[in-house]
Amino acid sequence: MTQTAEPETEEFVANYLLYLLAAASDAASGQFHATVRANGLRVPEWRVLACLNDRDGSMITQLARFALVEQSRLTRIIIQMDERGLVTRRGDPEDRRRVRVYLTDKGRALATQLVREARQHESTLMTQLANGDAARLKPALHALIRTLDPGDDSGG
Amino acid sequence: MTQTAEPETEEFVANYLLYLLAAASDAASGQFHATVRANGLRVPEWRVLACLNDRDGSMITQLARFALVEQSRLTRIIIQMDERGLVTRRGDPEDRRRVRVYLTDKGRALATQLVREARQHESTLMTQLANGDAARLKPALHALIRTLDPGDDSGG
Repeated sequence: MTQTAEPETEEFVANYLLYLLAAASDAASGQFHATVRANGLRVPEWRVLACLNDRDGSMITQLARFALVEQSRLTRIIIQMDERGLVTRRGDPEDRRRVRVYLTDKGRALATQLVREARQHESTLMTQLANGDAARLKPALHALIRTLDPGDDSGG
Repeated sequence: MTQTAEPETEEFVANYLLYLLAAASDAASGQFHATVRANGLRVPEWRVLACLNDRDGSMITQLARFALVEQSRLTRIIIQMDERGLVTRRGDPEDRRRVRVYLTDKGRALATQLVREARQHESTLMTQLANGDAARLKPALHALIRTLDPGDDSGG
Protein backbone atom coordinates (compact mmCIF):
# COMPACT_ATOMS: atom_id res chain seq x y z
CA MET A 1 0.00 0.00 0.00
CA THR A 2 1.43 3.38 -0.98
CA GLN A 3 1.02 6.35 1.29
CA THR A 4 0.30 9.01 -1.30
CA ALA A 5 -1.24 12.15 0.08
CA GLU A 6 -3.08 13.24 -3.04
CA PRO A 7 -6.26 15.16 -2.44
CA GLU A 8 -9.19 12.78 -2.78
CA THR A 9 -12.10 15.11 -2.43
CA GLU A 10 -14.34 13.50 -5.04
CA GLU A 11 -17.05 11.31 -3.59
CA PHE A 12 -15.93 7.75 -3.77
CA VAL A 13 -18.77 5.26 -3.33
CA ALA A 14 -21.22 6.59 -5.93
CA ASN A 15 -18.76 5.97 -8.76
CA TYR A 16 -16.85 3.00 -7.28
CA LEU A 17 -16.75 0.08 -9.72
CA LEU A 18 -17.46 -2.56 -7.08
CA TYR A 19 -20.44 -0.57 -5.80
CA LEU A 20 -21.80 -0.11 -9.33
CA LEU A 21 -21.44 -3.81 -10.07
CA ALA A 22 -23.13 -4.85 -6.84
CA ALA A 23 -25.90 -2.27 -7.16
CA ALA A 24 -26.62 -3.12 -10.79
CA SER A 25 -26.56 -6.84 -10.04
CA ASP A 26 -28.82 -6.46 -6.99
CA ALA A 27 -31.33 -4.29 -8.82
CA ALA A 28 -31.45 -6.40 -11.98
CA SER A 29 -31.60 -9.67 -10.09
CA GLY A 30 -34.16 -8.29 -7.66
CA GLN A 31 -36.62 -7.91 -10.50
CA PHE A 32 -36.22 -11.38 -11.94
CA HIS A 33 -35.71 -13.21 -8.68
CA ALA A 34 -39.26 -12.25 -7.69
CA THR A 35 -40.34 -14.40 -10.65
CA VAL A 36 -38.04 -17.17 -9.49
CA ARG A 37 -39.49 -17.19 -5.99
CA ALA A 38 -43.04 -17.03 -7.35
CA ASN A 39 -42.23 -20.35 -9.02
CA GLY A 40 -41.24 -21.88 -5.69
CA LEU A 41 -37.50 -21.80 -6.36
CA ARG A 42 -34.56 -20.29 -4.52
CA VAL A 43 -32.06 -18.36 -6.64
CA PRO A 44 -29.35 -21.08 -6.77
CA GLU A 45 -32.03 -23.61 -7.77
CA TRP A 46 -33.06 -21.42 -10.69
CA ARG A 47 -29.42 -21.09 -11.72
CA VAL A 48 -28.99 -24.87 -11.64
CA LEU A 49 -32.07 -25.38 -13.81
CA ALA A 50 -30.83 -22.76 -16.30
CA CYS A 51 -27.38 -24.36 -16.45
CA LEU A 52 -28.81 -27.85 -16.99
CA ASN A 53 -31.11 -26.43 -19.64
CA ASP A 54 -27.91 -25.39 -21.46
CA ARG A 55 -25.85 -28.48 -20.65
CA ASP A 56 -27.81 -31.41 -19.26
CA GLY A 57 -25.60 -33.83 -17.38
CA SER A 58 -23.27 -31.17 -15.98
CA MET A 59 -21.13 -32.02 -12.99
CA ILE A 60 -21.53 -30.25 -9.64
CA THR A 61 -18.24 -28.38 -10.05
CA GLN A 62 -19.52 -26.78 -13.27
CA LEU A 63 -22.91 -26.01 -11.77
CA ALA A 64 -21.33 -24.43 -8.68
CA ARG A 65 -19.31 -22.07 -10.86
CA PHE A 66 -22.32 -20.78 -12.73
CA ALA A 67 -24.65 -20.81 -9.72
CA LEU A 68 -22.04 -18.73 -7.84
CA VAL A 69 -22.31 -20.81 -4.68
CA GLU A 70 -19.79 -23.02 -2.94
CA GLN A 71 -19.69 -26.62 -4.04
CA SER A 72 -20.60 -28.05 -0.63
CA ARG A 73 -23.68 -25.85 -0.45
CA LEU A 74 -24.62 -26.66 -4.02
CA THR A 75 -24.39 -30.38 -3.32
CA ARG A 76 -27.03 -30.02 -0.61
CA ILE A 77 -29.20 -27.94 -2.96
CA ILE A 78 -28.94 -30.58 -5.69
CA ILE A 79 -29.99 -33.32 -3.24
CA GLN A 80 -33.06 -31.28 -2.31
CA MET A 81 -33.86 -30.66 -5.98
CA ASP A 82 -33.57 -34.40 -6.58
CA GLU A 83 -36.01 -35.06 -3.71
CA ARG A 84 -38.45 -32.57 -5.28
CA GLY A 85 -38.24 -34.38 -8.60
CA LEU A 86 -36.56 -31.55 -10.51
CA VAL A 87 -33.25 -33.30 -11.23
CA THR A 88 -31.69 -36.75 -11.04
CA ARG A 89 -28.10 -37.67 -10.23
CA ARG A 90 -26.25 -40.43 -12.04
CA GLY A 91 -22.67 -41.61 -12.03
CA ASP A 92 -20.62 -40.77 -15.11
CA PRO A 93 -20.48 -43.90 -17.34
CA GLU A 94 -16.70 -43.50 -17.67
CA ASP A 95 -15.98 -42.67 -14.04
CA ARG A 96 -18.62 -43.71 -11.53
CA ARG A 97 -17.18 -41.43 -8.84
CA ARG A 98 -18.14 -38.41 -10.94
CA VAL A 99 -21.77 -37.48 -10.44
CA ARG A 100 -23.65 -35.88 -13.29
CA VAL A 101 -26.92 -34.01 -12.83
CA TYR A 102 -29.83 -34.30 -15.28
CA LEU A 103 -33.16 -32.53 -15.60
CA THR A 104 -36.30 -34.58 -15.06
CA ASP A 105 -39.29 -33.86 -17.31
CA LYS A 106 -40.72 -31.71 -14.53
CA GLY A 107 -37.41 -29.87 -14.11
CA ARG A 108 -37.08 -29.33 -17.83
CA ALA A 109 -40.57 -27.86 -18.13
CA LEU A 110 -39.84 -25.41 -15.32
CA ALA A 111 -36.40 -24.57 -16.76
CA THR A 112 -37.80 -23.94 -20.22
CA GLN A 113 -40.49 -21.63 -18.88
CA LEU A 114 -38.14 -19.66 -16.64
CA VAL A 115 -35.38 -19.32 -19.23
CA ARG A 116 -37.99 -17.93 -21.61
CA GLU A 117 -39.06 -15.39 -18.98
CA ALA A 118 -35.43 -14.55 -18.17
CA ARG A 119 -34.69 -13.90 -21.85
CA GLN A 120 -37.68 -11.60 -22.04
CA HIS A 121 -36.67 -9.73 -18.89
CA GLU A 122 -33.13 -9.33 -20.21
CA SER A 123 -34.39 -8.21 -23.59
CA THR A 124 -36.59 -5.57 -21.97
CA LEU A 125 -33.67 -4.29 -19.90
CA MET A 126 -31.36 -4.12 -22.90
CA THR A 127 -33.87 -2.23 -25.03
CA GLN A 128 -34.30 0.31 -22.23
CA LEU A 129 -30.60 1.14 -22.40
CA ALA A 130 -29.23 3.54 -24.96
CA ASN A 131 -27.72 1.68 -27.92
CA GLY A 132 -24.16 2.46 -26.95
CA ASP A 133 -24.59 1.30 -23.37
CA ALA A 134 -26.40 -1.88 -24.40
CA ALA A 135 -23.75 -2.74 -27.00
CA ARG A 136 -20.83 -2.26 -24.62
CA LEU A 137 -22.20 -3.66 -21.38
CA LYS A 138 -21.84 -7.39 -21.97
CA PRO A 139 -18.44 -7.22 -23.72
CA ALA A 140 -17.12 -5.02 -20.91
CA LEU A 141 -18.42 -7.45 -18.26
CA HIS A 142 -16.89 -10.42 -20.10
CA ALA A 143 -13.59 -8.54 -20.23
CA LEU A 144 -13.76 -7.76 -16.53
CA ILE A 145 -14.50 -11.39 -15.64
CA ARG A 146 -11.56 -12.53 -17.77
CA THR A 147 -9.34 -9.94 -16.08
CA LEU A 148 -10.38 -11.07 -12.61
CA ASP A 149 -9.96 -14.75 -13.32
CA PRO A 150 -8.33 -15.43 -16.69
CA GLY A 151 -9.19 -19.13 -16.59
CA ASP A 152 -12.80 -18.68 -15.61
CA ASP A 153 -14.74 -16.64 -18.15
CA SER A 154 -17.98 -18.24 -19.12
CA GLY A 155 -16.80 -18.40 -22.70
CA GLY A 156 -19.83 -16.55 -23.96
CA MET B 1 -45.68 -14.25 -20.31
CA THR B 2 -45.83 -15.05 -24.00
CA GLN B 3 -45.68 -18.64 -25.20
CA THR B 4 -43.53 -18.21 -28.26
CA ALA B 5 -41.97 -21.37 -29.60
CA GLU B 6 -38.95 -19.82 -31.27
CA PRO B 7 -35.89 -21.99 -31.44
CA GLU B 8 -33.56 -21.03 -28.61
CA THR B 9 -30.58 -23.24 -29.23
CA GLU B 10 -27.86 -20.78 -28.19
CA GLU B 11 -26.48 -21.37 -24.69
CA PHE B 12 -28.17 -19.01 -22.32
CA VAL B 13 -26.39 -18.67 -18.99
CA ALA B 14 -22.86 -17.88 -20.18
CA ASN B 15 -24.02 -14.67 -21.89
CA TYR B 16 -26.96 -13.80 -19.63
CA LEU B 17 -26.74 -10.24 -18.37
CA LEU B 18 -27.77 -11.09 -14.80
CA TYR B 19 -25.21 -13.89 -14.66
CA LEU B 20 -22.47 -11.62 -16.01
CA LEU B 21 -23.31 -8.91 -13.48
CA ALA B 22 -23.38 -11.34 -10.56
CA ALA B 23 -20.20 -13.13 -11.67
CA ALA B 24 -18.29 -9.88 -12.26
CA SER B 25 -19.50 -8.46 -8.95
CA ASP B 26 -18.64 -11.64 -7.04
CA ALA B 27 -15.18 -11.90 -8.58
CA ALA B 28 -14.28 -8.23 -8.17
CA SER B 29 -15.66 -8.02 -4.65
CA GLY B 30 -14.05 -11.31 -3.69
CA GLN B 31 -10.65 -9.76 -4.22
CA PHE B 32 -11.20 -6.62 -2.22
CA HIS B 33 -13.38 -8.16 0.47
CA ALA B 34 -10.43 -10.27 1.54
CA THR B 35 -8.76 -6.95 2.45
CA VAL B 36 -11.91 -5.85 4.26
CA ARG B 37 -12.03 -9.01 6.37
CA ALA B 38 -8.31 -8.79 7.07
CA ASN B 39 -9.12 -5.46 8.73
CA GLY B 40 -11.69 -7.09 11.00
CA LEU B 41 -14.72 -5.75 9.14
CA ARG B 42 -17.71 -7.37 7.51
CA VAL B 43 -18.64 -6.16 4.04
CA PRO B 44 -21.61 -3.96 5.06
CA GLU B 45 -19.42 -2.38 7.76
CA TRP B 46 -16.84 -1.45 5.16
CA ARG B 47 -19.55 0.04 2.97
CA VAL B 48 -20.85 2.12 5.88
CA LEU B 49 -17.36 3.47 6.60
CA ALA B 50 -16.86 4.33 2.92
CA CYS B 51 -20.22 6.10 2.74
CA LEU B 52 -19.55 8.11 5.89
CA ASN B 53 -16.11 8.99 4.54
CA ASP B 54 -17.98 10.60 1.62
CA ARG B 55 -20.84 12.07 3.64
CA ASP B 56 -20.34 12.11 7.39
CA GLY B 57 -23.62 12.40 9.25
CA SER B 58 -25.63 10.33 6.77
CA MET B 59 -28.93 8.84 7.87
CA ILE B 60 -29.50 5.10 8.05
CA THR B 61 -31.82 5.15 5.04
CA GLN B 62 -29.03 6.59 2.88
CA LEU B 63 -26.44 4.20 4.28
CA ALA B 64 -28.72 1.21 3.70
CA ARG B 65 -29.09 2.14 0.02
CA PHE B 66 -25.36 2.27 -0.59
CA ALA B 67 -24.52 -0.66 1.67
CA LEU B 68 -27.10 -2.73 -0.26
CA VAL B 69 -28.62 -4.22 2.88
CA GLU B 70 -32.06 -3.85 4.41
CA GLN B 71 -32.54 -0.98 6.79
CA SER B 72 -33.42 -3.17 9.79
CA ARG B 73 -30.26 -5.21 9.33
CA LEU B 74 -28.17 -2.09 8.83
CA THR B 75 -29.54 -0.58 12.03
CA ARG B 76 -28.20 -3.57 13.98
CA ILE B 77 -24.86 -3.28 12.17
CA ILE B 78 -24.60 0.42 13.02
CA ILE B 79 -25.28 -0.31 16.70
CA GLN B 80 -22.47 -2.87 16.70
CA MET B 81 -20.14 -0.40 14.95
CA ASP B 82 -21.03 2.17 17.61
CA GLU B 83 -20.17 -0.33 20.35
CA ARG B 84 -16.81 -0.96 18.65
CA GLY B 85 -16.08 2.75 18.60
CA LEU B 86 -16.13 3.14 14.81
CA VAL B 87 -19.19 5.43 14.56
CA THR B 88 -21.45 7.49 16.81
CA ARG B 89 -25.17 8.13 16.43
CA ARG B 90 -26.72 11.52 17.14
CA GLY B 91 -30.19 12.95 16.62
CA ASP B 92 -30.56 15.46 13.79
CA PRO B 93 -30.53 18.98 15.29
CA GLU B 94 -33.64 19.86 13.27
CA ASP B 95 -35.52 16.61 13.89
CA ARG B 96 -34.45 14.57 16.89
CA ARG B 97 -36.28 11.48 15.62
CA ARG B 98 -33.87 11.31 12.68
CA VAL B 99 -30.64 9.60 13.61
CA ARG B 100 -27.45 10.62 11.87
CA VAL B 101 -24.30 8.51 11.90
CA TYR B 102 -20.82 10.00 12.25
CA LEU B 103 -17.33 8.54 12.03
CA THR B 104 -15.24 8.52 15.19
CA ASP B 105 -11.53 9.28 14.86
CA LYS B 106 -10.90 5.53 14.90
CA GLY B 107 -13.55 4.94 12.25
CA ARG B 108 -12.23 7.73 10.08
CA ALA B 109 -8.69 6.37 10.20
CA LEU B 110 -9.89 2.94 9.10
CA ALA B 111 -12.16 4.42 6.42
CA THR B 112 -9.37 6.56 5.01
CA GLN B 113 -7.01 3.61 4.81
CA LEU B 114 -9.55 1.25 3.23
CA VAL B 115 -10.86 3.78 0.72
CA ARG B 116 -7.27 4.36 -0.37
CA GLU B 117 -6.79 0.61 -0.85
CA ALA B 118 -10.13 0.31 -2.65
CA ARG B 119 -9.16 3.10 -5.05
CA GLN B 120 -5.91 1.32 -5.78
CA HIS B 121 -7.65 -2.03 -6.34
CA GLU B 122 -10.15 -0.37 -8.66
CA SER B 123 -7.41 1.47 -10.51
CA THR B 124 -5.51 -1.79 -11.05
CA LEU B 125 -8.64 -3.50 -12.38
CA MET B 126 -9.44 -0.65 -14.74
CA THR B 127 -5.92 -0.53 -16.17
CA GLN B 128 -6.09 -4.28 -16.82
CA LEU B 129 -9.10 -3.75 -19.06
CA ALA B 130 -8.72 -2.65 -22.66
CA ASN B 131 -9.27 1.09 -23.04
CA GLY B 132 -12.64 0.71 -24.72
CA ASP B 133 -13.98 -1.65 -22.06
CA ALA B 134 -12.69 0.49 -19.20
CA ALA B 135 -14.17 3.65 -20.69
CA ARG B 136 -17.61 2.14 -21.25
CA LEU B 137 -18.05 -0.03 -18.18
CA LYS B 138 -18.99 2.56 -15.55
CA PRO B 139 -21.24 4.66 -17.80
CA ALA B 140 -23.05 1.50 -18.91
CA LEU B 141 -23.52 0.38 -15.30
CA HIS B 142 -24.82 3.82 -14.29
CA ALA B 143 -27.25 3.68 -17.21
CA LEU B 144 -28.41 0.21 -16.18
CA ILE B 145 -28.96 1.30 -12.56
CA ARG B 146 -30.96 4.31 -13.75
CA THR B 147 -33.02 2.05 -16.01
CA LEU B 148 -33.75 -0.37 -13.20
CA ASP B 149 -34.72 2.30 -10.70
CA PRO B 150 -34.92 5.75 -12.26
CA GLY B 151 -35.07 7.48 -8.88
CA ASP B 152 -32.20 5.61 -7.35
CA ASP B 153 -28.98 6.08 -9.30
CA SER B 154 -26.07 7.03 -7.16
CA GLY B 155 -25.73 10.25 -9.08
CA GLY B 156 -22.05 9.66 -9.78
